[in-house]
Amino acid sequence: MRSGHRTAGLGRVGAISVLTLCFGCLHVVSLKAKLFTRLGGLLHSTQTPISYETFYFEQKIDHFGFLEDGTFKQRYLVADKHWQQPGGPILLYVGNEGDITWFCNNTGFMWEIAEELGAMLVFAEHRYYGESLPFGQDSYSDSKHLNYLTSEQALADFAVLIQNLKNTQPGAQHSPVIAIGGSYGGMLSAWFRMKYPNVVVGALAASAPIWQFPGMVPCGDFYKIVTQDFARSGYNCDTNIRKSWKAINNVSSTASGLQWLSEQFSLCTPLKTKNGIISFKGWLQETWVNLAMVDYPYEANFLQPLPRWPVQVVCKYLGFNSTVSDYQLLHGVSQAAKVYYNYTGSSSCLNMSESATSSLGWLGWTYQACTEMVMPMCTNGVQDMFEPEEWNFQVFSDECSAMFGVRPRADWAGTVYGGKDISSHSNIIFSNGGLDPWLAGGVTYNITDSLISIMIPEGAHHLDLRYSNDHDPPSVRAARALEVKYFQQWIRQATKTPQTSKT
Amino acid sequence: MRSGHRTAGLGRVGAISVLTLCFGCLHVVSLKAKLFTRLGGLLHSTQTPISYETFYFEQKIDHFGFLEDGTFKQRYLVADKHWQQPGGPILLYVGNEGDITWFCNNTGFMWEIAEELGAMLVFAEHRYYGESLPFGQDSYSDSKHLNYLTSEQALADFAVLIQNLKNTQPGAQHSPVIAIGGSYGGMLSAWFRMKYPNVVVGALAASAPIWQFPGMVPCGDFYKIVTQDFARSGYNCDTNIRKSWKAINNVSSTASGLQWLSEQFSLCTPLKTKNGIISFKGWLQETWVNLAMVDYPYEANFLQPLPRWPVQVVCKYLGFNSTVSDYQLLHGVSQAAKVYYNYTGSSSCLNMSESATSSLGWLGWTYQACTEMVMPMCTNGVQDMFEPEEWNFQVFSDECSAMFGVRPRADWAGTVYGGKDISSHSNIIFSNGGLDPWLAGGVTYNITDSLISIMIPEGAHHLDLRYSNDHDPPSVRAARALEVKYFQQWIRQATKTPQTSKT
Repeated sequence: MRSGHRTAGLGRVGAISVLTLCFGCLHVVSLKAKLFTRLGGLLHSTQTPISYETFYFEQKIDHFGFLEDGTFKQRYLVADKHWQQPGGPILLYVGNEGDITWFCNNTGFMWEIAEELGAMLVFAEHRYYGESLPFGQDSYSDSKHLNYLTSEQALADFAVLIQNLKNTQPGAQHSPVIAIGGSYGGMLSAWFRMKYPNVVVGALAASAPIWQFPGMVPCGDFYKIVTQDFARSGYNCDTNIRKSWKAINNVSSTASGLQWLSEQFSLCTPLKTKNGIISFKGWLQETWVNLAMVDYPYEANFLQPLPRWPVQVVCKYLGFNSTVSDYQLLHGVSQAAKVYYNYTGSSSCLNMSESATSSLGWLGWTYQACTEMVMPMCTNGVQDMFEPEEWNFQVFSDECSAMFGVRPRADWAGTVYGGKDISSHSNIIFSNGGLDPWLAGGVTYNITDSLISIMIPEGAHHLDLRYSNDHDPPSVRAARALEVKYFQQWIRQATKTPQTSKT
Repeated sequence: MRSGHRTAGLGRVGAISVLTLCFGCLHVVSLKAKLFTRLGGLLHSTQTPISYETFYFEQKIDHFGFLEDGTFKQRYLVADKHWQQPGGPILLYVGNEGDITWFCNNTGFMWEIAEELGAMLVFAEHRYYGESLPFGQDSYSDSKHLNYLTSEQALADFAVLIQNLKNTQPGAQHSPVIAIGGSYGGMLSAWFRMKYPNVVVGALAASAPIWQFPGMVPCGDFYKIVTQDFARSGYNCDTNIRKSWKAINNVSSTASGLQWLSEQFSLCTPLKTKNGIISFKGWLQETWVNLAMVDYPYEANFLQPLPRWPVQVVCKYLGFNSTVSDYQLLHGVSQAAKVYYNYTGSSSCLNMSESATSSLGWLGWTYQACTEMVMPMCTNGVQDMFEPEEWNFQVFSDECSAMFGVRPRADWAGTVYGGKDISSHSNIIFSNGGLDPWLAGGVTYNITDSLISIMIPEGAHHLDLRYSNDHDPPSVRAARALEVKYFQQWIRQATKTPQTSKT
C-alpha cells in the first residue's frame, strides 16, 4: 500500500495504488529508464529505426454532450515511409495511459512489419496523457476537469481522428485501418473494433485484460500468476517471498529493526511509522508484480532497465531453505529488489514514492480505475505469495470518493463493452503471455473463428509488441507471424469489399 | 416554415421545424386523437387487448461522465402475460421521441406475437420524453439541463435497464432480448444491436432512416417520395400541389386575399404578415409529408384520425386540370388539408401552431436534430412538388445556436453509428414502406445474410409495427411473418449458445 501522499487538489492517496495496479504503472518512465533508452540504441543497432512526424488534431473535449463545445489538441505520430498509397493499410496504435512517444518506442513490432505490409504507422495519444491534455495544466485540477477522461471519449477521439485522416490524407480514403494496442491500449484496441467496426477492419489486443472486471474472473487469479512466475523461476522463491511479509513485521517491530530494514533496502527515506511499513510492503508487492510483467527473455528497459529473465535473477537471491532467519531472508529480498530498482548500479538510494504517484499517468489511470476501470484484485496468501487482502468494493469506492469526488460504477464496463458476451464481434486477436499476470483477465481461447486467442507461453506483458530479439522464444515468433497473417487477411477482405464511400 | 414562436428559455424557433421534420412530429398526440383512440376501441374490438404494469428504473443522468452522479426515474411498461419463464424471450420496444404509452398502444405487432413467442413485452421510455425527465420540470429549461439528451445516453439507459432486468427478474437471466422500434425508435433499435450485441440478440428497425445523415443519401429523396405518393394517388395531385405555392403567393398579396385564404382554411388565427404566409406554407408542406407517412390502407388514428388511404382522399380535392384559377385551386387545397386536420368534423378551426411546438416531444427532437441527428433535406420543385429550398448546414447551425446555444456536429452520427459501413454487424431487420418518405434514408437492400431488408411496397411509416387489419396488403402480412421467423431464428441461436453468465 501507498499511503500518506498528497496529490495537488485531489485529496489523499490511500489504498488505491495497490487496488488499481495501473498496469504496473507502465506509463511511468523514470529519468533512469530514459537514459537507458538512449544507451539502448547502441545495444540494439540492428533495430528498425524509428522516425516519425508529430501532428496535433483538434478534438472535441466532449463527444457525448454538446454544451461543452471546446476542443483540445490530440497528439499523434505518423510514419509513412513504407506506406503504399493509394489504399495501403494503416496500422494504428491506440494509445494508453502514458506519453505516446513511449508506446511508439516500445512497439517495435509495428516498425518491423510496416514495410512488409506497405503500411502507414499512426500512434495516437490517449486524452489526458502525454501532451494531449484537454485543459492544459488544469486537466487534473479537479473532478470537473477530469470529467472527460473516459475510455468512451478516448475511443471517440480515435474514431474521429481516423475518419478525418482518411478524408483528408490523399490516398488514405480506402485504406483499411488495423488497431493495435497493448495492456489498457489492447483493451481499447479490442473495444475500438467492437464499437467502431466502420473505422477499423480488425484489432490486435495484446495482453488486454478485458475480463478483469467484476464478476467475470476470480479476483485472485492475477496474483496467482505472479506467484507461479516466481515459483518456477527459482528454488523456494515464492515460498520465501510469502514468508517475507511476516519477517518484515517482525523486524520492523523495533526501532533498530526499522533502521536495519531501511539500510538494507538503501531507502532514500528511512522507514519510521506503521503506515510506512504498510507502504513498504505495498511497494515490494508492486515490485514483484512489475517483475512478473516484464519477465522478458532478454535485457530490456520497459519499466526499468533489467537483465534477461529478471525473475530468475531476482530468485537467485531468494533460494533459502526453511531455516533462514528473518534478517537473512530480508537481506535476500533487498538484493532482489535492487535487481529491479538498481540494475544499472546508478541509484544511490531507492525512492519508494518517485516512481508512481508523481506522474500524471499514474493519476490518470487511478481516476479511470476509480470510475470505469474497476478491476477487482485479491490475495489469500495460500494460492499466492502475498498477504491476504479481500476485494472490498465499498472501501475502494470510498477511497475514490475521498480522492476524486467520484465513485466507481462496478457494472458499467461490462455493460458497455460486453463482458464475456462478445461473440458477435469479429476480427480481433487477443494475444496473451503465459508469464503475464494480466493473463488472468485476458481472452485465452478462441471465441469464434475471427475472435482469436494467441497464447505465448514464455511471454510476459505483450512481448509480441516489442522488437524482435535473438533471445525471443519460438512462441512469440510464431505469434507475430500469425498476427501478420491475420492482418493480411483482414486487409484482403477490406480490399475485396471496400467500405462504402460517401455518396 | 414556422417562425416567430417563442419557447420558454430557449430562444427563437426559426426555420428549424421544417428542416428537422421531427419524423412528422410522431410524438404529438392531440386531445382529438386521444379521444378518437378511445372511440377507436370500439372500432377494433378484435384487437389483442393491451394490459401492462408500469415501472420506474433509477438511471444515471450521465453514463459517460462521473461528475454528474444524479439519477432519474426512467419509465418502462411490462406485459408478461404470455411470458414463458424461465428463459422466454423479451421483446423490447426502444422508445423514441414521445410518451412511451403512445408507442405501446401503437405497436400492435408486439401484442399480437407475444403469445406465439412466449415473450415478455417491455416498452422502455426514452429519456427527456413522457415521464422520463432527468431534471423533472427543469429538463428543458436550458442547454445545461438538455446536455444529457443524446442517443448514446438513451442507448445506455436501455442497456443498463435490460441488464438489470435480467439480473433481478427471476427466470429472465438467460432470456434472449430482441429490440424493436419504429422511426427514430427503429434507428435506436438498430444502433442498440450494433453497440450492445451483448444485451440484444437482434433488432427490428422499422422505417428507420439510419442513412438520412450528411453525405449518405441525396437530400432531395425524402420529398421526392412524398411527391410520388401524391402523384400516384390521384389525377394531377402532385402537379396541383406544386402550383399551390405560387397561388398562395398570388392570393395573399392583397389584404382581401389574405382574409379569403384564412377563411377558406378555417384558420383559428387569420394570416396577416409575410412571415405568416411562410409559416402557412411550411404548415401545409408538413401536412403533405405527414399524410404520406400515414397513408395507411385503413381508417387509423396515428397522427390524426384519418380515413383509409388518406392521400387518395386528399387528392380527390386536387384533381384540377391546368385551367384552374388560383382561388379554385386553393379551395381544393383547403378541403384537402381539412381531411388531415378535421376528418372527424369536430374542429371549429384549424390551429397552425398547436400541433407541434407546444409539445416537449417536438422540443426534444428539435434539440436532438440540432446536435446529433443532422438530417439534410432539400427540395427543388422539379422532382418534388415543393418550393425549392437548399440544404444549408450553416444556416441550420446558426438557428440551433440561437435556439439552444449548441451547434450540430454534422459528421458525428456517421462516425459513431457507422454510416454505410455496417456490414460487420448482424441480426438486424430493416423494414421499409414504399410509401414512406423516410424510406429515403433507410436500408433497402440486404447488406449481409443477417442484415436484412424487408420492403413493404404498399406500406407507409412502419405499417408492420401496427395491429394487423383486414385491409392490410399482402406485403405487410408477409413482412410480419418473416420478421417473426427471424425472431424465432435469433431466439434459437441464443438458446443454443447462451450468453455466458457471470462467473
